[in-house]
Amino acid sequence: MVEALNQLRDQIDSVDQQLLSLLQQRINLVHKVGEVKTEHGLPIYDPSREAAMLAKRRGEAESKGVPPQLIEDVLRRVMRESYTSEKDAGFKTINPDLGDVVVIGGHGALGKVFVNMFQLSGYNVKVMGRNDWERADEFFAGAGLVVVSVPIKTTEQIIRQLSTLPENCVLCDLTSVKARPLKAMLDTHKGPVVGLHPMFGPDVPSLAKQAVVYVNGRGEQHYQWLLQQMAIWGARIFPVSAEKHDEAMTLIQSLRHFTSFAYGRHLAELDADLKLLLDLSSPIYRLELAMVGRLFAQNAELYADIIMASNDSVGMIERYYQHFGQLVELIKAGDREGFINNFAEVSDWFGEYSQTFLAESRSLLQQANDNRQG
Amino acid sequence: MVEALNQLRDQIDSVDQQLLSLLQQRINLVHKVGEVKTEHGLPIYDPSREAAMLAKRRGEAESKGVPPQLIEDVLRRVMRESYTSEKDAGFKTINPDLGDVVVIGGHGALGKVFVNMFQLSGYNVKVMGRNDWERADEFFAGAGLVVVSVPIKTTEQIIRQLSTLPENCVLCDLTSVKARPLKAMLDTHKGPVVGLHPMFGPDVPSLAKQAVVYVNGRGEQHYQWLLQQMAIWGARIFPVSAEKHDEAMTLIQSLRHFTSFAYGRHLAELDADLKLLLDLSSPIYRLELAMVGRLFAQNAELYADIIMASNDSVGMIERYYQHFGQLVELIKAGDREGFINNFAEVSDWFGEYSQTFLAESRSLLQQANDNRQG
Repeated sequence: MVEALNQLRDQIDSVDQQLLSLLQQRINLVHKVGEVKTEHGLPIYDPSREAAMLAKRRGEAESKGVPPQLIEDVLRRVMRESYTSEKDAGFKTINPDLGDVVVIGGHGALGKVFVNMFQLSGYNVKVMGRNDWERADEFFAGAGLVVVSVPIKTTEQIIRQLSTLPENCVLCDLTSVKARPLKAMLDTHKGPVVGLHPMFGPDVPSLAKQAVVYVNGRGEQHYQWLLQQMAIWGARIFPVSAEKHDEAMTLIQSLRHFTSFAYGRHLAELDADLKLLLDLSSPIYRLELAMVGRLFAQNAELYADIIMASNDSVGMIERYYQHFGQLVELIKAGDREGFINNFAEVSDWFGEYSQTFLAESRSLLQQANDNRQG
Repeated sequence: MVEALNQLRDQIDSVDQQLLSLLQQRINLVHKVGEVKTEHGLPIYDPSREAAMLAKRRGEAESKGVPPQLIEDVLRRVMRESYTSEKDAGFKTINPDLGDVVVIGGHGALGKVFVNMFQLSGYNVKVMGRNDWERADEFFAGAGLVVVSVPIKTTEQIIRQLSTLPENCVLCDLTSVKARPLKAMLDTHKGPVVGLHPMFGPDVPSLAKQAVVYVNGRGEQHYQWLLQQMAIWGARIFPVSAEKHDEAMTLIQSLRHFTSFAYGRHLAELDADLKLLLDLSSPIYRLELAMVGRLFAQNAELYADIIMASNDSVGMIERYYQHFGQLVELIKAGDREGFINNFAEVSDWFGEYSQTFLAESRSLLQQANDNRQG
C-alpha cells in the first residue's frame, strides 16, 4: 500500500510542478496585458471582460469533465495575484498637467494607500503631516488636488484652514461621513469639490473591485479625471447624495461596529472560554466570532469616532436597542408563534436577497473550510 | 494595441487549456489515492499530511518566483474538489458486523446526510419516518445503531419510545442541545449511548474538516467504531461534557442567531434600501449583511427551537440585552473616553485571538472580493 501511495504521490508532485510553471506563465502573460492596458489608460479590472473569460473557461471545463466552478474559483484567485502585481507596475497618468497632489494626513494608514496610488500613477505627491502647517503655503502653491485624510474629529477644522488653495485646485476628503465635511469644503474653497469615501481598509492588496463612493460638491467636469484615475486602479466608483450616504453609514458602519463591540464586550464580561468555543465551532460560527474579534485588533479611536460621530448614529443604535428589546420580550414570553410570524415577515421583506446571501455565504464558508488547518 | 492584446489573450487561452488538463489529471490521481486509502480504512483528510504537502509546495513556489500563498490557496481549492468526490466513492466499513443502521428522521435534511454517509460506508440503512412507528419492532429488531435526527421539540418524546432496542445497539442523537436528550437516552436504553452534535448544515459538499461534537453517555468502547467511521469521512471529532456543550451553544448558536434575527428585523422595520446598502458596501459590509440575510432563507421553526429551546438560552439573550443597554448609555452620554477604555479592556481579553481573527477574516474577505462580479 505504501508503495502504491508513494507512486501516486510522485505523480501528483510532478503535476504540481507543471501547475507552478503554468501559473508563472499565466502571471507573466497577464502582466504584459497590464502593460498594454496601462499604456492606453485602460482599467486593470473590466467586469464584463472578466465575466466573458470565465464563462468561456467554464464551458471548456465542462467539456473536459472538470467541474466548472473549480476552474472559475482557481482563475479568480489567480487573477487577484495579477491585479495586485499590476498595481505595482504603475498606471497611466490621466491628468498629466495636474499640479501637485497634496495628501493631508498622508502618513496615516489610508492616506498612505492614496499617496502610493497617485505616485504609481505618475503624479507628484506631497505628504502633509500635522507638523507641516507652518509651511502650508509652500504645499498649496502648486497644488492641483488636495486630499484630506485625517481623523473624523479633526476633519472639519482642517478643511476650514484650506481657504488659500489655488482656485482650480480640486479639494476632496476620504472621511466616512460626508454631509458636514462637504459643507465645510464648499464653504471654504471656491473651486471644484468632491467628497469621497473609500469603502475598504488600508490592508487591501489592490484596489481592484473595491468601492469608492463619491458625493458631488461642485464642478464635476473638473474632477472627472480623478474618478477616471480611480477607475483605472480597478475601483468601482459609485455616486450618492451626502444625506443618503450618511444615512446608509449609520447602518453599514455605526450600528454594525457597535453590535460587534457589544458582542465582544459581552464575551469578555462572561469571560467565555474562547478556545472551547472555537473547538466546537463549524466554519460559520468561527467566521461569526472572527467578524467580532477582528474589531479588537484595530484602533479604538477610529471606531469611537465612527460610532459617536453624529447624533444620527447614536439615534440609529437606540432604535435598534428598542427593536431588540421587543424581540427579547417575545422570547421571554415563550411566544413561538409570534417568533415565527415575525421571522416570516422579515423573510418576505428580504425577498430573493436571502437566497442570494445564502448562496454567497455558503460559497465563502466552503472557502473558509478549505483554509482550515485541522 | 488590439492585435497585441489578442495575441496575449490567445497565449493565456492556451495556458488555461493546459491548466484544465492538469487539474483533471490531479483530480484523477487523488481519486486513486482515495481508493487506496478507503481500501485500508484511512481517513480521506489527514491534517498533517495536507500541511506537509502544502509546505513543500510553498517552498517550490518560492524557488520558482510564484507567490507561495497563491499555490496554497489554489491547492486547497483543488483538494476540496477531491474531498467532495472521494466522498462519493465510498468509505471502508469500520464495523462490518454491525446490524442495521436505523435513522429516525432520516428523511429530514440533516438525517439524509447521515443516511447517505452510512450507505457510502457499506452499512444497511433503514430510514424511519413519522408514519413508521406502527412497524417500530421491525425496524429495531436487527438494529446495531439507532440515530435520532428529529426536530428539537420532539426529540425527548421520541427517545422515550426507544425502550425496546437490542441491548447492545448503540443509541445516539444529532440534536443541538445535549443534556436533556442524553438523559432521556440513558434513562430509556440500557446499552451504549452517545450524544452527537454535527456542527454543520446539510448543504456541505463533504464532511472533510467539519466538526462533530460528541458527549459520552455510556459504553464508549462500544461506539468507538462510530467515532472512527466519522473520522474516516474527514470530520473532526471533539469530546465535551453535556453541560459545557449546552452552555457553549447558548453563545455559539442561540445568541448569534437571535442577534442576526434582531438585525434583520431592524432593517425590515426601517424598510432600509437594501440595494443602496449593497452598492455602498465593500466586501466586509456585504459579508456582514449576508450573514444576517442568509438566516431568512432558512426554516423559522428550526431557529425558534434553537433560540427558545431552553431557559438558559433565553437567559443568555437577556444578559446580552443588559450589557448592550449599558453600552448604549455610554454612547448616549457621548463618553468617548469610557468607550475607548471599554474597548481596550475587551482587546486585552481577546488577546492574540484578535490578530488571528483579523488575519483569517482578511484572507476570507480577499476571497469574497475575488468573487465580486463587478
